Amino acid sequence: MRIDNLQYANWSEKIFRQMREGGVDAVHVTIAYHENFRETVLNFERWNRWFEQYPDLIMKGLWASDVDCAKAEGKTAIFLGFQNPSPIEDDIGLVEIVHTLGARFMQLTYNNQSLLATGCYEAEDTGITRMGKQVIKEMNRVGLVIDMSHSADRSTIEAADLSQRPIAITHANPYVWSPALRNKKDDVIRAVTQNGGMLGFSVYPHHLKDKSACTLESFCEMIARTADKFGTAHLGIGTDLCQDQPDSIVEWMRVGRWSKEIDYGEGSASDAGFPPMPSWFGDNRDFDNIESGLRAVGMNATEVAGIMGDNWHRFYAANFTPQR
Amino acid sequence: MRIDNLQYANWSEKIFRQMREGGVDAVHVTIAYHENFRETVLNFERWNRWFEQYPDLIMKGLWASDVDCAKAEGKTAIFLGFQNPSPIEDDIGLVEIVHTLGARFMQLTYNNQSLLATGCYEAEDTGITRMGKQVIKEMNRVGLVIDMSHSADRSTIEAADLSQRPIAITHANPYVWSPALRNKKDDVIRAVTQNGGMLGFSVYPHHLKDKSACTLESFCEMIARTADKFGTAHLGIGTDLCQDQPDSIVEWMRVGRWSKEIDYGEGSASDAGFPPMPSWFGDNRDFDNIESGLRAVGMNATEVAGIMGDNWHRFYAANFTPQR
Repeated sequence: MRIDNLQYANWSEKIFRQMREGGVDAVHVTIAYHENFRETVLNFERWNRWFEQYPDLIMKGLWASDVDCAKAEGKTAIFLGFQNPSPIEDDIGLVEIVHTLGARFMQLTYNNQSLLATGCYEAEDTGITRMGKQVIKEMNRVGLVIDMSHSADRSTIEAADLSQRPIAITHANPYVWSPALRNKKDDVIRAVTQNGGMLGFSVYPHHLKDKSACTLESFCEMIARTADKFGTAHLGIGTDLCQDQPDSIVEWMRVGRWSKEIDYGEGSASDAGFPPMPSWFGDNRDFDNIESGLRAVGMNATEVAGIMGDNWHRFYAANFTPQR
Repeated sequence: MRIDNLQYANWSEKIFRQMREGGVDAVHVTIAYHENFRETVLNFERWNRWFEQYPDLIMKGLWASDVDCAKAEGKTAIFLGFQNPSPIEDDIGLVEIVHTLGARFMQLTYNNQSLLATGCYEAEDTGITRMGKQVIKEMNRVGLVIDMSHSADRSTIEAADLSQRPIAITHANPYVWSPALRNKKDDVIRAVTQNGGMLGFSVYPHHLKDKSACTLESFCEMIARTADKFGTAHLGIGTDLCQDQPDSIVEWMRVGRWSKEIDYGEGSASDAGFPPMPSWFGDNRDFDNIESGLRAVGMNATEVAGIMGDNWHRFYAANFTPQR
């Protein structure tokens, strides 16, 4: 079983075919960065058209069992999620609505302060807001997973503690390995994993040691050391693959409509676009490299299978259904 | 099994309890007259709150099997629908979105010309529009039933013929019995029922012979004669019960935002509000009266059971799921 728990590609039949070549049974796909509710619905509509158009390659993923179904039928199950709470606007009733439409992960913040929590680029982190506390309860109730990948440390730790169900950092790496603002310090990873939550390792170059030059060995060694510290069962992959996107998209991701000035995020004026991917991971056909790399650094077959997909599958099974 | 295929009450715990007292296993509830997409979503949200608040009385109805489930658990399954295509705006992608959210019936028009077809109060009926033809195909594909209760004759006949799946007139009576503009002529009823469609009999006084003074015997005799003509299997109940609504609501139903002048619809300046209900049907506890009345005019047990709910149940089972 192979699950990538974060991609935001410029979707096409080519990429859907590459998913099949790479044996990818499920992908969690971002459909909102700054979109409001109506705009997010347009993105659900776009995926409905693709599901209708490519029924032999992809299918809508709603439950863990859809991953098994996709695997059995030789398709990729597409699970949808948001990197920002903008789709629910200021309306807690939209939490259940977007879950009904198929959303399964929602970040409480995307870099900036949101109505719910503080993003990782703000100067001060005031933790979970009044509305944030209500929305966490509602997300728990309906089965919409809290994702803190782009949130600040205190907000993340508070979310992990306030949430009655496990939460996730779908795409980031440990700060001790690569001290990027988006990577996560040990106490943050501990808060998330000790409550049953998951960390998905990213191959987005800004999250890698030595960025695009990062070696496969260094990446896999980092995973093995993280497993030693927090337990293999809480780890998976969330590549953050942004395949075939033009650089205008990274600008939308960073600036949306919230600023009239450009903000370079993890990049810089001289390095404003999408960074080149590492040589060992260019697209969905390269998951074999990560799998071999994990074996090469000494992880056993069960551990490797867990990280490549079994752990996310177990997490999906426990966290996408409404609370009893 | 008892199904009422059209109500628009001012919902409250009182009414939910009356549904249980009346042994009503399922109700099709209108949640849009003039609402746009976002406003309709607010109405879905309102029902989500009621389902959360009254889990012992009501449950969300999505499939025919939910009626059996509700019956077994002593609840009423609430199926949601629209009396106007305003919720899909000008966006065909919203057809699947509203079906995913739970909509199961949508009128192509509400009295006036819509983007899809002509309403029954327009001077001329130009039939199904270009967009209407596309939307009928899409409604067929996803399992959203076409309802022509408030449509003009030619539009209704064209919809019945264009649709690859049976359609419905959820709430109206035969014109030959009571010649109201909203009641349906025989050729319209024939076009709908001969393709497997359904007619739901209304007890809304403007659709009754002698209006509020209509007798139970006259109503049931009319049902028996309609069964003789078109077959019992295609007939059911759609009371159009608007219990506890203030008269401001009938004004909203009639005028929405489309006119600055008042339009009295089926009423008049001197009779502008909701008309008083007939003595034998005031609320959900009165379905026994209709059932007894149908036996009294000579219908057999199977025919009566069909009209009281079995026919709608069979229709739900065939028409709410996506097309193969």
